[in-house]
Amino acid sequence: MTETHVTQRLAEWIAAPRDLADLPPAVREEGVRTFFNWLGCAVGGATHETADRAVAAIRPFVGPAQASVVGRTERLDVPHAALLNGITSHVLDYDDTHLKTIIHPAGPVASAILAVAEYRPVDGKRFLEALITGIEVECRIGNSVYPDHYDRGWHITGTAGVFGAAAAVSRLLGLDAQRTAWALGIAATQSSGLREMFGTMCKSFHPGRAAQNGLMAAFLAEAGFDSSTRAIEAPRGFANVLSTKQDYSQILGGLGETWEAGLNSYKPFACGIVIHPAIDGCRQLRDELGADVMAGVSAVRLRTHPLVLELTGKTEPKTGLESKFSVFHAAACALLRGDGSPTAFTDEAANAPELVALRRKVKATSDAAIHEDQVAIEIDLTDGRTITRFVEHAIGSIHRPLSNEQLIEKFARQSEPVIGAAPTADLMDLAWRLTDLSDAAEVARASVAAGARAAAAAE
Amino acid sequence: MTETHVTQRLAEWIAAPRDLADLPPAVREEGVRTFFNWLGCAVGGATHETADRAVAAIRPFVGPAQASVVGRTERLDVPHAALLNGITSHVLDYDDTHLKTIIHPAGPVASAILAVAEYRPVDGKRFLEALITGIEVECRIGNSVYPDHYDRGWHITGTAGVFGAAAAVSRLLGLDAQRTAWALGIAATQSSGLREMFGTMCKSFHPGRAAQNGLMAAFLAEAGFDSSTRAIEAPRGFANVLSTKQDYSQILGGLGETWEAGLNSYKPFACGIVIHPAIDGCRQLRDELGADVMAGVSAVRLRTHPLVLELTGKTEPKTGLESKFSVFHAAACALLRGDGSPTAFTDEAANAPELVALRRKVKATSDAAIHEDQVAIEIDLTDGRTITRFVEHAIGSIHRPLSNEQLIEKFARQSEPVIGAAPTADLMDLAWRLTDLSDAAEVARASVAAGARAAAAAE
Repeated sequence: MTETHVTQRLAEWIAAPRDLADLPPAVREEGVRTFFNWLGCAVGGATHETADRAVAAIRPFVGPAQASVVGRTERLDVPHAALLNGITSHVLDYDDTHLKTIIHPAGPVASAILAVAEYRPVDGKRFLEALITGIEVECRIGNSVYPDHYDRGWHITGTAGVFGAAAAVSRLLGLDAQRTAWALGIAATQSSGLREMFGTMCKSFHPGRAAQNGLMAAFLAEAGFDSSTRAIEAPRGFANVLSTKQDYSQILGGLGETWEAGLNSYKPFACGIVIHPAIDGCRQLRDELGADVMAGVSAVRLRTHPLVLELTGKTEPKTGLESKFSVFHAAACALLRGDGSPTAFTDEAANAPELVALRRKVKATSDAAIHEDQVAIEIDLTDGRTITRFVEHAIGSIHRPLSNEQLIEKFARQSEPVIGAAPTADLMDLAWRLTDLSDAAEVARASVAAGARAAAAAE
Repeated sequence: MTETHVTQRLAEWIAAPRDLADLPPAVREEGVRTFFNWLGCAVGGATHETADRAVAAIRPFVGPAQASVVGRTERLDVPHAALLNGITSHVLDYDDTHLKTIIHPAGPVASAILAVAEYRPVDGKRFLEALITGIEVECRIGNSVYPDHYDRGWHITGTAGVFGAAAAVSRLLGLDAQRTAWALGIAATQSSGLREMFGTMCKSFHPGRAAQNGLMAAFLAEAGFDSSTRAIEAPRGFANVLSTKQDYSQILGGLGETWEAGLNSYKPFACGIVIHPAIDGCRQLRDELGADVMAGVSAVRLRTHPLVLELTGKTEPKTGLESKFSVFHAAACALLRGDGSPTAFTDEAANAPELVALRRKVKATSDAAIHEDQVAIEIDLTDGRTITRFVEHAIGSIHRPLSNEQLIEKFARQSEPVIGAAPTADLMDLAWRLTDLSDAAEVARASVAAGARAAAAAE
């Protein structure tokens, strides 16, 4: 499909006058849940060694202490804070999912604007509106090229995320349509991130860099740094160069009327969304039959959607990061430990002898008749029985969304070990009250226990 | 073509013990010429508004004053200095060209390592060896995917350049093969830059970001930030995702024996290499017949290689940057002013009435029988004569390389207006003596007139 002025018309929509109150209530509410879930994930991933190593590399080069790294004691310059927040919020593969594109929407966008909010103050309503705008742009651009673009090998959270960050920060900076179009162009020409990186530290680097690069695209455009204003649709622009599918109606159709940002979902398990059904089903069987039965498993057969083996077919993961890409490990850990949380995907778990032994008994086959949120499980037990389970819709899918209570439990389990119970409770409270805050950056500052930051500063 | 361990074997070569003296003398000599030409271009572009706007955008966020921006008074953190040097050295489209791929090799690589040299001191011999290694990696990766990759719409100086910067900085940091492979992987997953950006400020942003991102890839790998070690050849790695051609023999074949870095060429004119034949031919006719004859031109007909109209077919350029992508403007300016230097591609020139009038009389047709360094020119004069010229090999091509004297003249014409005549002479002297320097960073510091920096510091 060809279309003219896609970038320009999208920029005009981004830059148009719009209040949070103009958005449908359900979209606003999902925006708050998106932010809440993102924040918990960013705190939860804050102490991951991926973040430690990134900080070690950038530390000699960072600028003024302008913005918090959520859950950590460092304060960095704004773009570097965005980079780190993007890494930490995605590193546990526990964040959110736009199921139509497998984009993890909040990482690139929230990471960018929370860092900006500490530098250019903004109230919670404008902050939330920018978050929703950025996610809307990101998911619509993703829709326009999915699935061809993803199938080719692009990590769409990075490639589409940079547009979302650019759009949201452009909105916070109040850029006009011309400069917003430049920001989208500067974002487009940095769109990157290869799926080959799954299972390495570079996976979470993608939303981090998307946040940082999208943010700088907006600041560059603000300073008059120009770009093409046809960066999305031009013959040698984003959509044609990075995809064989270009459906621009997905970008412009119903803009401001139907909202992709209202379709966000939140992961119950700390791994790729495609193995959620397998974990869910294995945990159901374990809950039903008892943990002791699971010690006597002789064979596990999974029939799965074809993407499962394509994305998570690692048979012998050696690290925690790699284990997220092993449906065999995930099923074994769900059966034996009932665990799908971050503790299921550590280096310890990847190498635990009892899990290694069980995962080698797990076989998976692709079946095009199985939907992405389904799985069929057959388990042979050593006592001769065979048990089965068919999961129709996995928990965390659009049909079985996490409730606010489940989001709170997920947040607390991630955040309490990092910043403690009382600061976690305060932080959750602030996040739910986002639209009442006169200064959205309050959330960023509250994500670090006051004592911890003071201690770090005194070092 | 499929191949295993491409990234790993390339990394092993990059990390292997190697002295400058192990390289063929002609390659070393071309390396010095490459550095010399790059340096003159970086000084020449230092005052361009593209650089001013980039500096304005990044200024609030920059880190310690670690490294010079060549030709400018700012000192920035190392990665931001690399970004700026990459922008300034390419912004006039006057730099160097690896003719087999149209990569401009020095921008991403020299910009990165000169910034690093001010932070981690290195002598001139090791510096030159790293420069040549980086360019070798960049051009070989370019060869492996060219022309399909370029034809799809990728600006190959950005996409391949990030590997060159990563390789060269890995070498300066002394990374082992494992970490060098990670650096290549971190580079691969940031490989980007769209041809749609030609004619905008984002074009020179590409080598700048490639320098900065490649540099940080090496520092991240040094800090243990891991990546895939099959980033180039994996099914969802660089070559398969960004190209339909993958010829890995171009990367690994004759590594250390035949040298792409010895094939560099230097532009005599400040625009895309493809319109050099037209400018050369028009200048030849003007020199031969006299400037007054050129005032009486009624029609100009060019037969050109097909890439000329594809890349430089803008009929009504409005800015200096756009005018570089107009063969019509370039021919008019060469005929009327005899100019192909940066002054031919300013906003003034793009809008000068006499040039606008003449460029509208220029017609160009594509002819597949015309080689990339050729052009056939026919000019109708108002006195009824028709004059013709066939350029067999344009100046600056591999068959008519710029001499050292021509490089000196080109350097001086760019540098003297920016930093003055005496500092220019000193700077050129230092650059020629690169391999004698105990501290390569001396060149960076000498690129700014001492008085200018002191004055800036006192502000």
